Amino acid sequence: MKKLLILAALLPAATSAQDKNLAYEITAGLTTEVGQRLAGTEQEAKARAWATQKLKALGFQNIRIEPFEMKGWIRGEEKAEITAPYTHKIAITALGHSGATPTNGLTGTVVVYPTYADFLAAPEAAINGKIVYVGHAMGRTQDGSSYGVFGRVRREGPAVAAKRGAAAFLIRSIGTDDHRTPHTGVTSWPDGVTPLAAAALSNPDADNLERIARTSSSPIKMSLTLTPKFTGPQQSGNVLAELPGTDPAAGIVLVACHLDSWDLGTGAVDDAAGCGIVTDAALSVAAKGKHRRTIRVLWAGSEEVGVFGGEAYFKAHKDEPHALAAESDFGADRIWQVNFRLPEPAAPLRARISEALAAQGIGTGRGVAGGGADVGQMIAAGTPAIDLNQDGTRYFDLHHTADDTLDKVDPASLRQNVKAWSSMLDLVANAPEPLIFTDGQ
Amino acid sequence: MKKLLILAALLPAATSAQDKNLAYEITAGLTTEVGQRLAGTEQEAKARAWATQKLKALGFQNIRIEPFEMKGWIRGEEKAEITAPYTHKIAITALGHSGATPTNGLTGTVVVYPTYADFLAAPEAAINGKIVYVGHAMGRTQDGSSYGVFGRVRREGPAVAAKRGAAAFLIRSIGTDDHRTPHTGVTSWPDGVTPLAAAALSNPDADNLERIARTSSSPIKMSLTLTPKFTGPQQSGNVLAELPGTDPAAGIVLVACHLDSWDLGTGAVDDAAGCGIVTDAALSVAAKGKHRRTIRVLWAGSEEVGVFGGEAYFKAHKDEPHALAAESDFGADRIWQVNFRLPEPAAPLRARISEALAAQGIGTGRGVAGGGADVGQMIAAGTPAIDLNQDGTRYFDLHHTADDTLDKVDPASLRQNVKAWSSMLDLVANAPEPLIFTDGQ
Repeated sequence: MKKLLILAALLPAATSAQDKNLAYEITAGLTTEVGQRLAGTEQEAKARAWATQKLKALGFQNIRIEPFEMKGWIRGEEKAEITAPYTHKIAITALGHSGATPTNGLTGTVVVYPTYADFLAAPEAAINGKIVYVGHAMGRTQDGSSYGVFGRVRREGPAVAAKRGAAAFLIRSIGTDDHRTPHTGVTSWPDGVTPLAAAALSNPDADNLERIARTSSSPIKMSLTLTPKFTGPQQSGNVLAELPGTDPAAGIVLVACHLDSWDLGTGAVDDAAGCGIVTDAALSVAAKGKHRRTIRVLWAGSEEVGVFGGEAYFKAHKDEPHALAAESDFGADRIWQVNFRLPEPAAPLRARISEALAAQGIGTGRGVAGGGADVGQMIAAGTPAIDLNQDGTRYFDLHHTADDTLDKVDPASLRQNVKAWSSMLDLVANAPEPLIFTDGQ
Repeated sequence: MKKLLILAALLPAATSAQDKNLAYEITAGLTTEVGQRLAGTEQEAKARAWATQKLKALGFQNIRIEPFEMKGWIRGEEKAEITAPYTHKIAITALGHSGATPTNGLTGTVVVYPTYADFLAAPEAAINGKIVYVGHAMGRTQDGSSYGVFGRVRREGPAVAAKRGAAAFLIRSIGTDDHRTPHTGVTSWPDGVTPLAAAALSNPDADNLERIARTSSSPIKMSLTLTPKFTGPQQSGNVLAELPGTDPAAGIVLVACHLDSWDLGTGAVDDAAGCGIVTDAALSVAAKGKHRRTIRVLWAGSEEVGVFGGEAYFKAHKDEPHALAAESDFGADRIWQVNFRLPEPAAPLRARISEALAAQGIGTGRGVAGGGADVGQMIAAGTPAIDLNQDGTRYFDLHHTADDTLDKVDPASLRQNVKAWSSMLDLVANAPEPLIFTDGQ
């Protein structure tokens, strides 16, 4: 018996660390103990406090909150009903930065456009004073690239509708699920455009509305109440923490995620999981002993509402030497591909990473790494980048919905992510090759 | 060109009937043109009007509404939030016949019981004045039999909690999905028990609450607003329609579904699809020419809230000779098994049906047919029965939720159902065997 106990004590620490699944622990903690973390609200401030405490407990150094101001916006009442030719309550949610209807709502005739092109081609007379609906159903893709195409309806559509005199702008959710859980997401208002009430219907509600438009010749009437509001300048902030390397001149290895989430779910796949993955992987490199380059973890604030955290990071840190910027912000499913954007002298490092990841079943793509939103400006300004691409097949089932909750995160997939990130980070942090882009490269 | 047109005109009518998919057309029409059909409301009355018009257009005879009174109940505001130790908005829905909280809600301490047995074993002092939560997570089964076991929490639990002095009674949804769409369903109050506020949390919310209870030692506080109300006696009704047979003495073949639905979705799989299936199948038998037995279609009212339509049918028609009672009320997925409850002299008919269905990949079970709820009393009183069992694997993902919408219905599965029902009905309607149970059988 005594012998068994001694043997147990000698088991490698790696086993218990792996059993622990720190990435999952962070994801569960943030989503359970904080929950939704809407940018610029008290909930996001709680998340920063939770993050600093957690990162300290995990042994990180130079932990700090870098505050910044952004424009606040909060959701209000959300209610919609088709009143003619049939009556249907509609599952709807305001888009981020939506304007409001009158407090008691508005009623109006709905004009239905199956695609964004149909809407753009419609004469202004057809739109003026109407509740405009645009379908433009999103297709499911593994790499998530359809978000670029279909997200346009949400990002640009409301302002175009406002300029054309619409009473309100509704879209089919930018999402691939079939649940009564509509997808929010930010829209943008160019200077001089007054925000219009803008909202997304769940996909089943969108199907129903489009079916009514197809099969009935009677006008479609709707009542709509949306009372979100802009709350003026609010404080947000980035959380930074480091695992110092032995060679400060070799550049910082920046690994990012975002701490804020939309307010409908608990931000599990978007993006607590990303924070769990990069943090777990960074610690696993440090756990091996000394590493050459400092690894800096960035848990960015206010990503969802306009990448304000990424912008603040860029302003504050763009002149520090960065050897790499990489972000995990595409859910919690498995990594299937790696893409690079490295300086030419780092070709051998690229080959070592490709080889290590190939052994884990991860291919090397032909694309150029672009990072996640929060490191986008750093990369655009010349910081080397590596993208570890996650399978996005089911990401847009959950993205920006009430369904983005912990139960959607598969602990085994998180481990797969952490293993890939650990391999990549270990090789980058210790690479002998220079990793700073020279001008013009 | 002219020749082609003539050929097209000569194509068998069966092809176009099959292309038509009447079962799907009925399901789409009822869910789109009426939508939710809560028992005892104007929406259910609209559904009866829609049904009689549709059945007339389809060529049924003796179409009538048989009205009855039942106790009305409508949903009100539904809002819940965990306020300590963390803050979380909760996706919640009142159970049918739930009592109400005060208009401005109540706040209280939550006591969490993972199973119904835990709740029953808890001392009254632990429950008195508390918001009681019971988990009792439902397992997924192909035959849906787990509903019997887990549904008990919903049916009996609220009254038990009321008698034990609870402030409110919450359950994990009786459902197998992982969406923020809680499952409603009726509960029952024995005489003398004042209805308590009783509601279901969505499964992700239930997971979260149970996780907080497991990982935090602080008391869990919640605020809860539920304002449903009983609306007194309301009119509901059954819709009946017939395809007369040549031999009135041979007994009526009764095929049923229910017309009412819960109010959260549009009642597509529960039970517009059932009405589509039995109606399409009945017509396909009549389309062959004469049939011996009259086929009577029953679109029952007020099933969800207490099987009041089934009870009214039994009272009105129990003395008419019935050769069969069968119901489609378990969704829209494929039929995998048949079970019988036929008089002994009908053994050859049973064999013919088994053989016909086996050719369609449908096995014969060893169970005894019991019908759906609306024909349950008829069968209990001796009417022969055949159950065509649908695959229920995903039924409780949708059952009684906002997600019960048309997009969940697969037209090809509906066709499979109609084909099986047509084969069975054709054989029963034309069977030479006597099909009336004698006393004591």
